Amino acid sequence: MDAMSEHTYKQFDIELETLRTRVLQMGGLVEQQVKKAMEGLYEGDTGLLELVVKEDARVNQQEVELDEACNQMIAKRQPTAIDLRMVTTVIKSIADLEKIGDKAHKIARLGLALNNQHTGFTPEVELRHMAELSLSMLHTALDAFARLNVVAAAEVVHQDEHVNTEYDSVVRQLITYMMEDPRTISRSLDIMSIAKAIERVGDHAKNIAEYVIYMVKGLNVRHSTLDEIDREIANGD
Amino acid sequence: MDAMSEHTYKQFDIELETLRTRVLQMGGLVEQQVKKAMEGLYEGDTGLLELVVKEDARVNQQEVELDEACNQMIAKRQPTAIDLRMVTTVIKSIADLEKIGDKAHKIARLGLALNNQHTGFTPEVELRHMAELSLSMLHTALDAFARLNVVAAAEVVHQDEHVNTEYDSVVRQLITYMMEDPRTISRSLDIMSIAKAIERVGDHAKNIAEYVIYMVKGLNVRHSTLDEIDREIANGD
Repeated sequence: MDAMSEHTYKQFDIELETLRTRVLQMGGLVEQQVKKAMEGLYEGDTGLLELVVKEDARVNQQEVELDEACNQMIAKRQPTAIDLRMVTTVIKSIADLEKIGDKAHKIARLGLALNNQHTGFTPEVELRHMAELSLSMLHTALDAFARLNVVAAAEVVHQDEHVNTEYDSVVRQLITYMMEDPRTISRSLDIMSIAKAIERVGDHAKNIAEYVIYMVKGLNVRHSTLDEIDREIANGD
Repeated sequence: MDAMSEHTYKQFDIELETLRTRVLQMGGLVEQQVKKAMEGLYEGDTGLLELVVKEDARVNQQEVELDEACNQMIAKRQPTAIDLRMVTTVIKSIADLEKIGDKAHKIARLGLALNNQHTGFTPEVELRHMAELSLSMLHTALDAFARLNVVAAAEVVHQDEHVNTEYDSVVRQLITYMMEDPRTISRSLDIMSIAKAIERVGDHAKNIAEYVIYMVKGLNVRHSTLDEIDREIANGD
């Protein structure tokens, strides 16, 4: 390798590292948005919920900037193999992070509406466990992205089943409330929308985890069964 | 341009055209999946609904193949400017098409469950208008992609508001049913899930339309207002 291309190569590595760091910063922001939305919801904290709504613009802005940075990097550096997979993984992951941001925004808006309608009402009992599971998936997915850890990524794919089970159980509980007292229907549907948003945070975290597996192993597991994923990850490294 | 690079250039154009054609084929398949799911739902046609569930594997397979084709194309041809935007647009669009396929699959599964539970029940009245709006958005978005038509793409972004309004009206109607007769709660929630899936078909069509605007104009409108989009499209061409 001559001095010039070695220089270009190092420059590319630095840019790639910067890109990865920015994705993790965006991920951290989005994680905080979901946490604050849930906290604001539990506490009926209007100020905190309004902050989440306001901060969504920052999430959106980061997506636009990172998307542009990815395109410029492909055009300028023309990466191949794992480097290219890294950039396309970033392109897809930021789209999912932005959508997780949308969910935080949605939860905050529903929380504000609940605050207005039902004073003193906190849907913490129904939602806390599910929200913790989804947030843990998101955290692990970002960690898997940071450390290129396919085992952690596979764990996230597994956890999604738990969140789905938890969501079904919340829905069943709410149906019972509604049947017992039809006056709770409107409120229960709002809580159901929040539960759905939390469930979708888990879905997007799972997407990111699948991209990490693709990035590291060059293997698309989007439509594989859990057993197939476990076998693939046990193979090789 | 020498003979060699002209040859490479033409080869790239042919590959890009093939890629675009394959995306449109996948789009056509997905559109049919949604149409069949709705038709099966209206008619209580178990055979048709089961077909939709089965065909989802084909949609998933096409996404995996197209995703791989995009990565190979970036690695081999190292496209820049509009050619690169075309490939990244395809990467994103197929992810949305695959998710529309998931929605068709979901509607079909819910239709099968409704068939088992409520004989002779067809939720056509509530859903037909909304489904037609979403399907029209999808059709126009694919058309905009095929003809690189930003005006058609902007139309899709506008239509999304109508679908959202229609969804809200379906939800209000279902809440009325549930309050009047709590025995309809479980059934109404299934219809609400179907309505939500239809609404999300519209969301994904809107995403594709936004990518088309980005591809043609090099302009990210994901977080712009409708007025801003209209102004941008009126500018220039």
